[in-house]
Amino acid sequence: MIMKLEERQKLRQDEIIIAARRCFCASGFHAASMSQIAGEAKLSVGQIYRYFSNKDAIIEEMVRRIIDSRIAEIEGKMQTDRIPQLLAWRQTLNEDDDKLMLEMSAEATRNPLVASMLAAADARMFANACESLKKQNPHLSEEHIRCCVEITAVMMEGTLFRRLTLQKASPELLEKRYREILNMLLKAN
Amino acid sequence: MIMKLEERQKLRQDEIIIAARRCFCASGFHAASMSQIAGEAKLSVGQIYRYFSNKDAIIEEMVRRIIDSRIAEIEGKMQTDRIPQLLAWRQTLNEDDDKLMLEMSAEATRNPLVASMLAAADARMFANACESLKKQNPHLSEEHIRCCVEITAVMMEGTLFRRLTLQKASPELLEKRYREILNMLLKAN
Repeated sequence: MIMKLEERQKLRQDEIIIAARRCFCASGFHAASMSQIAGEAKLSVGQIYRYFSNKDAIIEEMVRRIIDSRIAEIEGKMQTDRIPQLLAWRQTLNEDDDKLMLEMSAEATRNPLVASMLAAADARMFANACESLKKQNPHLSEEHIRCCVEITAVMMEGTLFRRLTLQKASPELLEKRYREILNMLLKAN
Repeated sequence: MIMKLEERQKLRQDEIIIAARRCFCASGFHAASMSQIAGEAKLSVGQIYRYFSNKDAIIEEMVRRIIDSRIAEIEGKMQTDRIPQLLAWRQTLNEDDDKLMLEMSAEATRNPLVASMLAAADARMFANACESLKKQNPHLSEEHIRCCVEITAVMMEGTLFRRLTLQKASPELLEKRYREILNMLLKAN
């Protein structure tokens, strides 16, 4: 009986997050209101507040889920080998997640709470990527690992940003270059 | 007499752009209204409309100015040599310009007009950077040049994005790596 209630609550929470993502993608964090999210989720505003105390709490849970899924990607199918291809062809793991992370960054410049959520999310992703790379390359120093992860993160996030523009260079050539860069990063002293 | 009028108009336009930048930084493009911009510029809404037909026209002029100043930076004091340092220490050419470009990117995901402004701005920056690099390295092929510029743009924009998080790697080591990457990009075949 208690389990059933928990399941129903979990389902409800999922529905709210899905509705919120739609509203945030359409209007941005700032313009999307709790009543708009409630309407999209086909719930009353009162019902929404039973699950989340305010819009920031929804944003926080949404970002936690995006980061969880990215970490799962890094640990799972996304091998280091696939990164040059991903960068050169500007492939995305999830287009809406990318949009929401761009929105998150813009909002972080004016909202300290969103800025601290973003910093915490990045710290979690970064630590996870370091651990994963260290497992594959146990001989590398911690400092060396952090440097590889930082430059890889710069290239992944820069690519996310540049997906909004037209690709003006050859993806085949870019893939070759990115592979050389990543090899060099691992080998360098 | 005509000159004086033009000068006054230019000055008024500058004041509006400065006021709009403040409003956009504080509330984002979506939430900032023409009347808020008018208030910030200490002008009437009617006066604002004499210079700009709508908010999009203000955004367009603002972006044009940001890109002009970035191109001037690239052509002027920003030598290729300074890039590794800029990246590793996450230095910025102009913090408010960076904020506004983040806002621009978030808005571009839901506003096709802003998306096309961003694409046009990037095309102008990209062509300019290619021309500049070609002048310094006339022996490189056009395709090679475009590949260098694209990867450099990815690293610059990724760094802009990551300035919102804590730097977890050693800037000294990063500077060394970025220098190696840029040297490799120029030499590679």
